[in-house]
Amino acid sequence: MPSFTVYKGSKDSKIVKSQTSKPDLKDDQVLIKVTASGLCGTDQHYKGADMALGHEGAGLVEDIGPNVKDLKKGDRVGWGYEHNSCGRCEQCLTGRETYCPEREMYGMANLDQGSFASHAVWREAFVFKLPDELSDAEAAPLMCGGATVFNALYTYNIKPTDRVGVMGVGGLGHLAIQFAAKMGCDVVVFSGSDSKKEEAMKLGAKEFVAMKGKSELEVSRPVDALLVTTSANPDWKMIMPVLAPNAIIFPMTVSFDNFEIPHLAMIQQGITVQGSVVAARAVHRKMLAFAALHGIKPIIMEFPLTQDGIEDAMKTLEEGKMRYRGVLRPQ
Amino acid sequence: MPSFTVYKGSKDSKIVKSQTSKPDLKDDQVLIKVTASGLCGTDQHYKGADMALGHEGAGLVEDIGPNVKDLKKGDRVGWGYEHNSCGRCEQCLTGRETYCPEREMYGMANLDQGSFASHAVWREAFVFKLPDELSDAEAAPLMCGGATVFNALYTYNIKPTDRVGVMGVGGLGHLAIQFAAKMGCDVVVFSGSDSKKEEAMKLGAKEFVAMKGKSELEVSRPVDALLVTTSANPDWKMIMPVLAPNAIIFPMTVSFDNFEIPHLAMIQQGITVQGSVVAARAVHRKMLAFAALHGIKPIIMEFPLTQDGIEDAMKTLEEGKMRYRGVLRPQ
Repeated sequence: MPSFTVYKGSKDSKIVKSQTSKPDLKDDQVLIKVTASGLCGTDQHYKGADMALGHEGAGLVEDIGPNVKDLKKGDRVGWGYEHNSCGRCEQCLTGRETYCPEREMYGMANLDQGSFASHAVWREAFVFKLPDELSDAEAAPLMCGGATVFNALYTYNIKPTDRVGVMGVGGLGHLAIQFAAKMGCDVVVFSGSDSKKEEAMKLGAKEFVAMKGKSELEVSRPVDALLVTTSANPDWKMIMPVLAPNAIIFPMTVSFDNFEIPHLAMIQQGITVQGSVVAARAVHRKMLAFAALHGIKPIIMEFPLTQDGIEDAMKTLEEGKMRYRGVLRPQ
Repeated sequence: MPSFTVYKGSKDSKIVKSQTSKPDLKDDQVLIKVTASGLCGTDQHYKGADMALGHEGAGLVEDIGPNVKDLKKGDRVGWGYEHNSCGRCEQCLTGRETYCPEREMYGMANLDQGSFASHAVWREAFVFKLPDELSDAEAAPLMCGGATVFNALYTYNIKPTDRVGVMGVGGLGHLAIQFAAKMGCDVVVFSGSDSKKEEAMKLGAKEFVAMKGKSELEVSRPVDALLVTTSANPDWKMIMPVLAPNAIIFPMTVSFDNFEIPHLAMIQQGITVQGSVVAARAVHRKMLAFAALHGIKPIIMEFPLTQDGIEDAMKTLEEGKMRYRGVLRPQ
């Protein structure tokens, strides 16, 4: 039986190269040859687990199962992960299948599959055709990072007339700036220092606030929607005064702690705190079309899709040196 | 110059009786003779401050200013407090004036005025005609308590098909049960013990969960919208599993601490945490009409509107013995 290469995490947090046997394609499964994979912060959270990593894939369809309807050999596709939503619950029936209670979360869905691999087998239902305007390496980071920030802006009805705050200029943040700016929003970026200011303004921000050392923030216009994409939550006492009444906050930081925010200010300002994950499939398609239409692309750093390459990319991300999304490419 | 009686808080948290001189009525001001006042938890928070207390008023219009348009002498009216919203900002212009950034919050608006008083002078703009179906004593607690829970259900589009959870059967909770039930919602009540079960079911609940001593909760159907009306926040780790995906939480507890909730669960379940205060005026009117139409009334305990009566009512509230809203009546 033929097999393909998969890169996994391991107990001592080393990247391990392993072989997965290639299954016979059933139903709507497709075999994809990986041409690019984004590196997400979540991969780092799971590198201590014995599971395949990578959920920002791009590649070519090499083979299709008997019930595949729309894809064909040679198609360029992207995918996040197959989340096994049930198809029967209210969330599934109303296009919110990423919140299906039966859905298997990241890393649970398929321990032997990931986009850090030579190949992957996924259901057609969870694979997206890539638009011509995006290269494989550009499309890959949109599969999770892009979909996550677009989902917040799109699903929660952020308006083109809103002021959108993006906290943190990284893998998610630099995409959030572009999506919000192209939606017509007045974007203000909050970052530690001024070092990313020029780039943020080029990506579409109208204002940039360096926070380090400040006890009070000044903005030219209060923030209606705030996407927090930093690896830790901000000092909310400093943020509340720059929020507009009835502002919405998206805490996108992956944290195993509690989310904490001043209680009385949240109530009196009528603030919404909104938990939000990656896009459901209907939204994901809109995200790709919108990115293609407006030339929204990640700024990437490429690394070889090898054990060393993955370790190197993770180290770059950990040290805060990624500008702005790492993409692994097979050699 | 004639004067009227006002009951204030004081530094040593004793209720103080004082006289306020009755101003000449200007513009759209009306002079109201107080016939009933609800007692809100917030009054207790402010009894250590030198300010007039009470913001759940009912009474009779005794005199009107030169620019009063709709009210006339003898009208039965209710009021919360005049919050001096600016009338120019986006919130004011879109019927959300309780979130006006220039609005003066509770206790700041008018230190000499409150519903713990013989009379009050307010702008007609912030006074509501009472429907015939509600007595003064029944209407008073709707001015803050009723308006607060109705605002959550109405403004944030809770649907008649939703399962609504009400945590805490007190001044707010026992009204929330009635409003939600009459809106068609499937109401589940979370309380400490079983002691209020019978009453909660009579008020319209379909299910009752006693939480004390439990480490896990069981409900027959997950909660789409949860109104937290207890004086302290619950153990969220126990609550998250009974929430439906994309549930909305209204933390109505008045707390000067942080609001804390498990971060990852909030994101993965797509939970909304919604800060919400009393109703804006357009919503307040709908609340009164809805209560009148459906016979929604507070269950009250009456106390004399005197120094001793206020102290007695506050003690009853503090000891958790109020069933379910205290109303002060002039003797």
